[in-house]
Amino acid sequence: MPFEVTILGSNSAVPIYGRHHTSQYLRIQNHFMLVDCGEGTQLQIKRFGLKAHKLEAIFISHLHGDHYLGLIGLLSSMHLMGRTKELELFGPKELAEIITVHFKYSDTTLRYKVNFHPINMDESDIIYETKKLTVTAFPVQHRIPCVGFYFEEKPFPVRLNKRKLPENISLADIGTLKKGEDVLNKDGSIRYGQEEYTLGRKRSRSYAYCTDTLYLPELAKFLKGVDLLYHEATFQTEEELNASGTYHASADQAAKLARDAEVGRLLIGHFSARYKDVEPLEAEARKIFNEAYLAHEGKTFTIEN
Amino acid sequence: MPFEVTILGSNSAVPIYGRHHTSQYLRIQNHFMLVDCGEGTQLQIKRFGLKAHKLEAIFISHLHGDHYLGLIGLLSSMHLMGRTKELELFGPKELAEIITVHFKYSDTTLRYKVNFHPINMDESDIIYETKKLTVTAFPVQHRIPCVGFYFEEKPFPVRLNKRKLPENISLADIGTLKKGEDVLNKDGSIRYGQEEYTLGRKRSRSYAYCTDTLYLPELAKFLKGVDLLYHEATFQTEEELNASGTYHASADQAAKLARDAEVGRLLIGHFSARYKDVEPLEAEARKIFNEAYLAHEGKTFTIEN
Repeated sequence: MPFEVTILGSNSAVPIYGRHHTSQYLRIQNHFMLVDCGEGTQLQIKRFGLKAHKLEAIFISHLHGDHYLGLIGLLSSMHLMGRTKELELFGPKELAEIITVHFKYSDTTLRYKVNFHPINMDESDIIYETKKLTVTAFPVQHRIPCVGFYFEEKPFPVRLNKRKLPENISLADIGTLKKGEDVLNKDGSIRYGQEEYTLGRKRSRSYAYCTDTLYLPELAKFLKGVDLLYHEATFQTEEELNASGTYHASADQAAKLARDAEVGRLLIGHFSARYKDVEPLEAEARKIFNEAYLAHEGKTFTIEN
Repeated sequence: MPFEVTILGSNSAVPIYGRHHTSQYLRIQNHFMLVDCGEGTQLQIKRFGLKAHKLEAIFISHLHGDHYLGLIGLLSSMHLMGRTKELELFGPKELAEIITVHFKYSDTTLRYKVNFHPINMDESDIIYETKKLTVTAFPVQHRIPCVGFYFEEKPFPVRLNKRKLPENISLADIGTLKKGEDVLNKDGSIRYGQEEYTLGRKRSRSYAYCTDTLYLPELAKFLKGVDLLYHEATFQTEEELNASGTYHASADQAAKLARDAEVGRLLIGHFSARYKDVEPLEAEARKIFNEAYLAHEGKTFTIEN
């Protein structure tokens, strides 16, 4: 089952050198989601062969233009392309007003329903939950209220080892095994043990998205062991003062957080317009955390079970 | 002195096949202006080697997203790039509210002044005037209020034929010649005639922008003799009913208007997403008006004196 993060844009405030504003297209099993939606996102979705109509949910981290100015256009285009499927939209509560103002003056009534869910920007909270996954919003620290998003698969069901199962096993016993428990005899001894009769569960995977934010070392606990962490690295280390002054982080700060949180891999992005070449940011991050990668546009990062 | 219209985008509602939403970058002598500003305009400006910071005025025809959703991003980027020069912005009065809402929630105060001039959408009016040019907004007919724009150079000064002028000619007489009048003797005979002592005026050039709109044959009078007419041609002739139903025009309707207005050249654009290949639209227009051209992105149309 796929768990994929495709980078649609990863440049900070001013788009430049062909780099676009922030947006990511996520596929987690059969859930298609968008995280942030900078200007041009609908074009980037097409450019990389992805499908807007598959999106079931859009998550907006904060109301700086480089993270949401593509939203109205994307919503409009899905309308014009005949979308009828409902869409879940998550963002700061003020986003509702922005959308309303636009559609009021363009005299647009979308032909599909947008269910807007205002995010509590002050506390961590599960904001979206399906049978397969949960999405938690958690506050980060930026010039205006901003949250990160934590995507996590729910535990997979235990897979039975069908070759081993006796034909006469009862449905009740199968249920017990599927719950991840051993089937016991009356004397407490194991009748059908997990180890022998099941193949265990597939590992649940996780992805965390942290931008825009200051370096927050205290997040390491919350992010512990996440498979993939996207963290902003707007600046190089030598610009750390500039980073904190603008409520951003540097490449080595992102790497420190990744190291301390013992994440699987780190993606850095939200690059400043001052860097034509962003390779040095990767090099800096790798000095501290080797599994650091640049969030290049068009690249898909896959997490295996 | 340049008179140039560069197409930044000319696709209608849904951007597709690499074609972008509507925007044009105008240079008329030393005036740099933008007409409409669809999503991605700031990127298109960079892509074609033009300069956002040179823009002195932006004109927005109407409040459908494909004509203005790039505006907030462009204003923000000019702010971030350090612009201090004032900017004149013309559009429907509701545009002010849209901009205000965005900048309120992103907590942005632009470091340059935007002088917003609401356009009277019901009547033709000169909305911008400099020493060199006038810009007239004129109502067209679309699903929501929409105007076209007519850019016209003011008369150039008469150029003196310096090789012919006698050394002892008086400043008063020079002034008379520069006004385009003959200098007369007391008896009414010509002392210094325009034909001999001047090279005449350079021809004043004009450009008209008409989108989005129904075909309005009555515009021919107003547009009479314009050098270059951009007119929407969202659909092919066979879709004329669809065109009028959506308040758009077809390629042959644009061509009829160009023919009846005896314009110099016609540019057609605002292509529907249904056309991957837009060449047939040009062919249709040329059956009626031979000087018809496709408004391809990145192309600059120049008007000579």
